[in-house]
Amino acid sequence: MAVVRDAVHGNIAISPLEEEIIDTPDFQRLRRIKQLALTYLVYPGAVHTRFEHSLGTMHLASSICDVLGIGGEEKEKIRLRALLHDLGHAAFSHESEYALHGILGTHERIGEEKILRGEAGDIIRERFRPEEIARGRGGLADKLISCDIGADRMDYLKRDAHYTGVAYGIIDIDRIIHTIGSGGGEIFLERGGLEAAESLLIGRFLMFSSVYMHKTVRIASAMLNRAIGNAVASGGLAPEEFLSAGDEEMLLRLAGIRESAPYADAIMKRRFYKQAFVLSDLHPMLEDKGRAEEELSRICGCDIIIGMPNVPAHPDGFLVRGRDGAESIFEASELVSSLLAAEERRRNAIVMCPEKNREEVSRRAEKYFSS
Amino acid sequence: MAVVRDAVHGNIAISPLEEEIIDTPDFQRLRRIKQLALTYLVYPGAVHTRFEHSLGTMHLASSICDVLGIGGEEKEKIRLRALLHDLGHAAFSHESEYALHGILGTHERIGEEKILRGEAGDIIRERFRPEEIARGRGGLADKLISCDIGADRMDYLKRDAHYTGVAYGIIDIDRIIHTIGSGGGEIFLERGGLEAAESLLIGRFLMFSSVYMHKTVRIASAMLNRAIGNAVASGGLAPEEFLSAGDEEMLLRLAGIRESAPYADAIMKRRFYKQAFVLSDLHPMLEDKGRAEEELSRICGCDIIIGMPNVPAHPDGFLVRGRDGAESIFEASELVSSLLAAEERRRNAIVMCPEKNREEVSRRAEKYFSS
Amino acid sequence: MAVVRDAVHGNIAISPLEEEIIDTPDFQRLRRIKQLALTYLVYPGAVHTRFEHSLGTMHLASSICDVLGIGGEEKEKIRLRALLHDLGHAAFSHESEYALHGILGTHERIGEEKILRGEAGDIIRERFRPEEIARGRGGLADKLISCDIGADRMDYLKRDAHYTGVAYGIIDIDRIIHTIGSGGGEIFLERGGLEAAESLLIGRFLMFSSVYMHKTVRIASAMLNRAIGNAVASGGLAPEEFLSAGDEEMLLRLAGIRESAPYADAIMKRRFYKQAFVLSDLHPMLEDKGRAEEELSRICGCDIIIGMPNVPAHPDGFLVRGRDGAESIFEASELVSSLLAAEERRRNAIVMCPEKNREEVSRRAEKYFSS
Amino acid sequence: MAVVRDAVHGNIAISPLEEEIIDTPDFQRLRRIKQLALTYLVYPGAVHTRFEHSLGTMHLASSICDVLGIGGEEKEKIRLRALLHDLGHAAFSHESEYALHGILGTHERIGEEKILRGEAGDIIRERFRPEEIARGRGGLADKLISCDIGADRMDYLKRDAHYTGVAYGIIDIDRIIHTIGSGGGEIFLERGGLEAAESLLIGRFLMFSSVYMHKTVRIASAMLNRAIGNAVASGGLAPEEFLSAGDEEMLLRLAGIRESAPYADAIMKRRFYKQAFVLSDLHPMLEDKGRAEEELSRICGCDIIIGMPNVPAHPDGFLVRGRDGAESIFEASELVSSLLAAEERRRNAIVMCPEKNREEVSRRAEKYFSS
Repeated sequence: MAVVRDAVHGNIAISPLEEEIIDTPDFQRLRRIKQLALTYLVYPGAVHTRFEHSLGTMHLASSICDVLGIGGEEKEKIRLRALLHDLGHAAFSHESEYALHGILGTHERIGEEKILRGEAGDIIRERFRPEEIARGRGGLADKLISCDIGADRMDYLKRDAHYTGVAYGIIDIDRIIHTIGSGGGEIFLERGGLEAAESLLIGRFLMFSSVYMHKTVRIASAMLNRAIGNAVASGGLAPEEFLSAGDEEMLLRLAGIRESAPYADAIMKRRFYKQAFVLSDLHPMLEDKGRAEEELSRICGCDIIIGMPNVPAHPDGFLVRGRDGAESIFEASELVSSLLAAEERRRNAIVMCPEKNREEVSRRAEKYFSS
Repeated sequence: MAVVRDAVHGNIAISPLEEEIIDTPDFQRLRRIKQLALTYLVYPGAVHTRFEHSLGTMHLASSICDVLGIGGEEKEKIRLRALLHDLGHAAFSHESEYALHGILGTHERIGEEKILRGEAGDIIRERFRPEEIARGRGGLADKLISCDIGADRMDYLKRDAHYTGVAYGIIDIDRIIHTIGSGGGEIFLERGGLEAAESLLIGRFLMFSSVYMHKTVRIASAMLNRAIGNAVASGGLAPEEFLSAGDEEMLLRLAGIRESAPYADAIMKRRFYKQAFVLSDLHPMLEDKGRAEEELSRICGCDIIIGMPNVPAHPDGFLVRGRDGAESIFEASELVSSLLAAEERRRNAIVMCPEKNREEVSRRAEKYFSS
Repeated sequence: MAVVRDAVHGNIAISPLEEEIIDTPDFQRLRRIKQLALTYLVYPGAVHTRFEHSLGTMHLASSICDVLGIGGEEKEKIRLRALLHDLGHAAFSHESEYALHGILGTHERIGEEKILRGEAGDIIRERFRPEEIARGRGGLADKLISCDIGADRMDYLKRDAHYTGVAYGIIDIDRIIHTIGSGGGEIFLERGGLEAAESLLIGRFLMFSSVYMHKTVRIASAMLNRAIGNAVASGGLAPEEFLSAGDEEMLLRLAGIRESAPYADAIMKRRFYKQAFVLSDLHPMLEDKGRAEEELSRICGCDIIIGMPNVPAHPDGFLVRGRDGAESIFEASELVSSLLAAEERRRNAIVMCPEKNREEVSRRAEKYFSS
Repeated sequence: MAVVRDAVHGNIAISPLEEEIIDTPDFQRLRRIKQLALTYLVYPGAVHTRFEHSLGTMHLASSICDVLGIGGEEKEKIRLRALLHDLGHAAFSHESEYALHGILGTHERIGEEKILRGEAGDIIRERFRPEEIARGRGGLADKLISCDIGADRMDYLKRDAHYTGVAYGIIDIDRIIHTIGSGGGEIFLERGGLEAAESLLIGRFLMFSSVYMHKTVRIASAMLNRAIGNAVASGGLAPEEFLSAGDEEMLLRLAGIRESAPYADAIMKRRFYKQAFVLSDLHPMLEDKGRAEEELSRICGCDIIIGMPNVPAHPDGFLVRGRDGAESIFEASELVSSLLAAEERRRNAIVMCPEKNREEVSRRAEKYFSS
């Protein structure tokens, strides 16, 4: 086994097969996709990439296997699945999904495709059928990686905390891992890990509030989405190009296309639009967001973007098993169940515009949305 | 200014007057009172003392003063108050309070006495009237030290996390301090610090669940309380002796008195009673806990102790000030307000007895309390 | 003052003038220049940039000013100088210097030019003459930033440790800063800081051994230098382009030029040359390294690159002031003076070639250099 | 396996047999012996005990076994040996050795006795012959625990750093452990771990300079030694009592004996003697230190103590194995070999006396020792 030094977990062991996969261009490309897209414009340290995160997720999934008594080929396959779980991300990962999603499909589906038909698949085939790695959403292997207390989230929370300098993501990984159990195809938590899991779930929520949904990050992302949308709509860029290039390359490309250049340029120079008005993201007029943007733009005589919250911040839920049987985490913990209401309250849509139009847009948007 | 190296905050600056106070026997005694009493029997690293904590609290109170624009003599006085805020603790601090409280009064009152009439007071008098330091509960100086987001709690949470190795107490002190404000004699938090404060309050709650109210710690404490009660009742120890000695000295003393020796001995050898039954701490029969212990003891034919929860784990509350005025933290945060219900659910009373009687006591206690 | 959250130092305060400079394209470009160039190919977390490092250096320089009693305009100017000290770096910073140095000059000179005539200069001029910031190598302001115990090195050591996960760079910044003194235009260290400084200097040396001069990093860098040299020699790239673009953009450019493409491509796919032979970097035949490469290449019938050590790892030296006067750190510390011999022993030149030619090159190079 | 949470290593697993041994009074007594004796009087956080350190040493020894491929009974025995390696320490451990050594023998011999004939031995006997654990100095099991890069030193360095807040002891345990090898009954280091080992050895040296040999700590220790010497000489205390009590109990005892009371009292009130003169610890007149103290005392008309350096700070040495065979660490590393000279330079003897006599003693001691 080779060893790689990781800033978060220390030494990470890698098998020869894994190393071969890591050295494919497809996987090396993850070095050029930042874990947190444009967040580095607010938290300058947040320049870490999907590459490190993928190694870290494999490392944690492997530790969970050890605790669950999963070894041999099964463990090898879970390690590969974890290693490759983000292979399908487009440049800017989640932040470009809004603009590209309808065209390209989810990153899960794209990743599946890349594993089945790409370089990674050829290497996997030396030992397994690629389908065994790429498919099986919802199975135990998948849950162990992707559930609330799975390898993916534990890795990114701790990693994002390390690179942003925001402490909420510091979690007791060791404790959680040692209280994970499995049975009947499900992942559950033993009661003894309740506090550790509460800490993880609340930490994740606070990272959403402070980092992932930071107002300026959301504005930058909304401008990026507009840039991507324009570039694709005008034929300047093919959506597929986002699947083979990295963040910076695509940002430079966007800066070279007339329809997207002003936005890309503004992002690079940190000349962000300003928040002019805030409203509930469930407001009925936001069902057709594009129309609201157009109408408001006409009314105000300036460019308008409306930023929606992206991924949900609340936990999906899992079972907690105590002496008297199992119950949902939402039942077991008032703290965790309070996250549902807390998220609802903090979600919103942001109406943004160039700085000089801010006051007028503020006034007119209020009127527009109360009509 | 002299400088002391602290394991939690790094360098702590100390004025000559403060140094003089620190070097009094009254203050040096705090080196012999562990911050977490018997918790080290479960978390072996938890051997830190009220001495370090007092320096740390002064250090943080000083930083809060800087942010609030409090300088000069006012700041000097707040530093002294913070330095001396735990001077009145009896040996085993909170853990002996249950047994001694009715006799000796609160540690706040004892501390006031020590400052007014003790060695510290003589030194303070070189510069201030000791009353200015000892009195004034409820004023701004006091709140800045003792409120939910004050210097005392921030220090002990971070310190307890460092020495126990339990991560929940890791908090973003810097962020909280920089969003503390004052006005009208009150401490409040600016909206921008909400996530940091949520993290602190929930971290404190999780520390309660995992550390401060750890079952074994509660059993050890209950046995200690019984030992103290017996020793004092039998005339073997004068309650005041707890005010001049440290933890270890008193434990050795308790081991030498016939009425308390079995308990003290058991604590030293980690032969703890076992939990036989758990019930709501609000059960009406617990209003006279002593009687319940006696009756159950007679029924079961063995020694019985009932351990009650000690200090409350929920926040006291404070104001959060945003653009649209101020609101209570309980209104501002679903997370924080969920702590009230969560605490209620996790509080309980523990019926404990020697290991060999466990099963029988379990059965009989259930019957006794449902009568 | 605005506040930026840094992963290494926590909150960093920034004045409005500084913020204006930071938001210029010239400065934002530093976000696209990695602090450790290609090191991330070995230590995947090492993706941090000159941008964060520049903020951190300003932050530490500011703290040193506070200790030295430097305030007002003088401090403002030192902060600006620290902020801008890396503005002149070409893409890949030190790693491209070997190829570009003779053509472009040092990054210090380029930085001076950028400050005097660029966007930063225009903003500085609101308050100071840009010459006051750009010039004055060797003065106190410069030493405070650049000497062995200055802001630049302290920042990068701690930062590189944080992002690589290699612990040797963890240093007691607080202690060093509080024992820095100044007098007669010189920076010196008080005797009380000797251990902290020894730890820093040795930590830096160990970082050289483990990270900065890691064999694979050196091979990647040598291949990069060859790529740059070829691209420039063939007219495919103008050297000045390295002054306006970032690392990734230039790597993509190099991959598009026939003469440099094989090297750039190999770097991106981690198909590195292998070390075939190691010799003293002082070997007389290395005085004309280009000729040795050519001759060996002809002899072996394959491409050959010889990698030289880049920047020196030993300290430059400074004064330590004790009760009995001042002495050089090399006199004051056997540990530090041992670094000179230790470095000499560990420096070497690496003869590298494609993997398949390794054995033959190994044999032939040994013969060639002993001729 | 039970699990204990350690502040330094996280979770430490403990077998039922080990738990039984840990719960004996002999082992629990280690909770009352501070790892760094009186160092907490200078570094207030340094209140950690031999108890935690013993658990930590077992934990690391176990990890080294895993790397060396030592399992089964052999590993179990090494774990026990590591767990019990400090069982023989008298109260104040190394700091009382100077006074008690000639009478009681080394802590190794006492520990052997306790294992063979004490409570631990009875429990061990369930599974092994106690001799297998207690004896065998110089064997591989012993080296793995006690050599320069062994479990004992790695644990105490990291632990002392954690509790004092002094960073020099932060080491890359993971790296060292993974480069430890064994062969021919010897422990050696692979070349790839050289930097990690250099960092450990130099870190240890810097901890000596800053913490273990801190001037005030040495003065406090010398006063303690005098107190112990007087108490034993006067018959007030039997030396054996130091083998069954803890630090604080013995300090209180010393304060109650006329001949030792002034010293014990001064320690508790931090009224330390002052350093009046410093000389080489190799000065021939120090061969009979007691006589020098007496004579100087008579000359100066006040109490005099001369403090000698205690344990050596330099490494003992071990083999480093590279491609071209093995060599001593002193040959392999200029840094490490410089430690020998560096230590020689920093070692000294301190002449100390009451504060008010300092100037006179300073003058007269200079004359006395140059006679």
